[in-house]
Amino acid sequence: MKKLINAPDKVVDEALAGMAAAHPDLIRIESPNIVVRKDAPRKGKVGIISGGGSGHEPMHGGFVGLGMLDAAAPGAVFTSPVPDQMLAATKAVNGGAGVLHIVKNYTGDVMNFDLASELAQGEGIEVASVVIADDVAVKDSLYTAGRRGVGGTVLAEKIVGGAAEGGADLATAKALVEKVQDNVRSMGMALTSCTVPAAGKPTFEIADDEMEIGIGIHGEPGRQRMKLASADEITEMLATPILDDGPFSKGDSVLVFVNGMGGTPLIELYVVFNKLAAILKDRGMTIGRSLVGNYITSLEMAGCSITLLKLDDELTRHWDAPVRTAALRWGI
Amino acid sequence: MKKLINAPDKVVDEALAGMAAAHPDLIRIESPNIVVRKDAPRKGKVGIISGGGSGHEPMHGGFVGLGMLDAAAPGAVFTSPVPDQMLAATKAVNGGAGVLHIVKNYTGDVMNFDLASELAQGEGIEVASVVIADDVAVKDSLYTAGRRGVGGTVLAEKIVGGAAEGGADLATAKALVEKVQDNVRSMGMALTSCTVPAAGKPTFEIADDEMEIGIGIHGEPGRQRMKLASADEITEMLATPILDDGPFSKGDSVLVFVNGMGGTPLIELYVVFNKLAAILKDRGMTIGRSLVGNYITSLEMAGCSITLLKLDDELTRHWDAPVRTAALRWGI
Repeated sequence: MKKLINAPDKVVDEALAGMAAAHPDLIRIESPNIVVRKDAPRKGKVGIISGGGSGHEPMHGGFVGLGMLDAAAPGAVFTSPVPDQMLAATKAVNGGAGVLHIVKNYTGDVMNFDLASELAQGEGIEVASVVIADDVAVKDSLYTAGRRGVGGTVLAEKIVGGAAEGGADLATAKALVEKVQDNVRSMGMALTSCTVPAAGKPTFEIADDEMEIGIGIHGEPGRQRMKLASADEITEMLATPILDDGPFSKGDSVLVFVNGMGGTPLIELYVVFNKLAAILKDRGMTIGRSLVGNYITSLEMAGCSITLLKLDDELTRHWDAPVRTAALRWGI
Repeated sequence: MKKLINAPDKVVDEALAGMAAAHPDLIRIESPNIVVRKDAPRKGKVGIISGGGSGHEPMHGGFVGLGMLDAAAPGAVFTSPVPDQMLAATKAVNGGAGVLHIVKNYTGDVMNFDLASELAQGEGIEVASVVIADDVAVKDSLYTAGRRGVGGTVLAEKIVGGAAEGGADLATAKALVEKVQDNVRSMGMALTSCTVPAAGKPTFEIADDEMEIGIGIHGEPGRQRMKLASADEITEMLATPILDDGPFSKGDSVLVFVNGMGGTPLIELYVVFNKLAAILKDRGMTIGRSLVGNYITSLEMAGCSITLLKLDDELTRHWDAPVRTAALRWGI
């Protein structure tokens, strides 16, 4: 195992300490391992939190800051955070206007966020939750009943973050995330596995001439293990199920998100974007906004995912709103 | 070779087409393969251009836009662009106030930029050049006489870009890049090699229990091939030569740039940042600004580099100035 770490059981703590040292203007780290927006809680603002296993950075800690998340609860690598973390995050960002939980659909995350929500409500905090389940690859999966939550989460966090910064109330914020969920679809693939530090060996085996289409962000099995194909063929294999499943039709403007799994060079993500742009043009759709890079990763896995979100004026306006986090920043 | 490509000889062209499709608000692609700021040339503004081999993305094309580069000339992967590209870039951004070339110190880049500069001056365009040579690892190297140009280039491009946007003239812009060069030092390391698409096999061999300290961004040999060490030990091995070589002393405020080589997860870069923050604190220095992520890469190489820039009010002001590019954006 070749990694820039000191010890497998210290990676998350030390990375969080590094984040605090790098971004003291944006965040603070609080016990038990939560990333909190520097100026939280903000009185009268709906708090937006998310969380999940570590190893998917910059998601979610890198999205904490003005115009996106108020806090994130990172678990151990590829492991759900514990309810105490979600509860502490909820309390840390409660400014009296309620707190919204954005939950990726993995059984552990859903269960622990539910428990934290009950505990927080027991303490008098109004909590609402939305589960993101945008991965069209498979119906049920290792760790998940129903669809998995992947790249759509990044877009939901940015969009609702913009709205909450602008004064949206809890019901409006919840409805907005549900609107993103209704209009977003994703699918990913991998060329290589990744190695969880505590495991010390690759999560799965894959031959030098093979790839996995429809893989999950923890290396969960996808639709198909098959021989390597070209970038154009791979892009087709990801885009077609997304476009056929989602609410996409001719004339639509979409946000096109080509995401790297962590170990794929940016130059290759743009090769994928190029083909995807041609596919969308063929279908009579326009690229309203774009995002290209490593935003929801699987450690050093080589591969990519595609996420498409059908835009309207409301979603576009909140996407464009100022954001200032470690990983996404504009307008401020 | 596992890559998201269609054919080795089409990677750069298709990636540039993908950039154009993803960022039509920022850039355009012109023949012969140059990335040009959408609204270039801007009358009366000093043009800032750079260039070099592809495979180091987002550098340099991802830095083209308001407040940073006016154009970039990308060569084939790990290969200098040709003089025609630098000449075309110079002409495309010439707004009558002269053009500054920012050149990383590799023999091919220096030679080709020199030739392009002569040709452009022959056509009546005022050109100035600064060579960046900030890598303290080795004196001479494969492809380079003197020190190699690495992470300091990213900082120089941002800082002079901010100044040029604010109206700096050519002499001022040149002096500013020289000031960055005087105050910046870098060093990198690798855990793994990378594979140039046209070569189809790893650039160098490295054992499963080995790493290379002081490596160049094309896999050029560094100071030492040695057994794997901890992140803390590696950070010390990179930071100490930088701090001992550079103009750094107690009480200084520095810009701390922890850069990923392409295949290293962000969580590991923050582990490095954490140790680096402790080293700087021990030396009585403060972290004035920070940058953490993949900005000057070597395809999918696993590893990192550290760059430290001694800040003053002028450098900090231009660093903070608004920037809007594919890879760096804030304030706008």
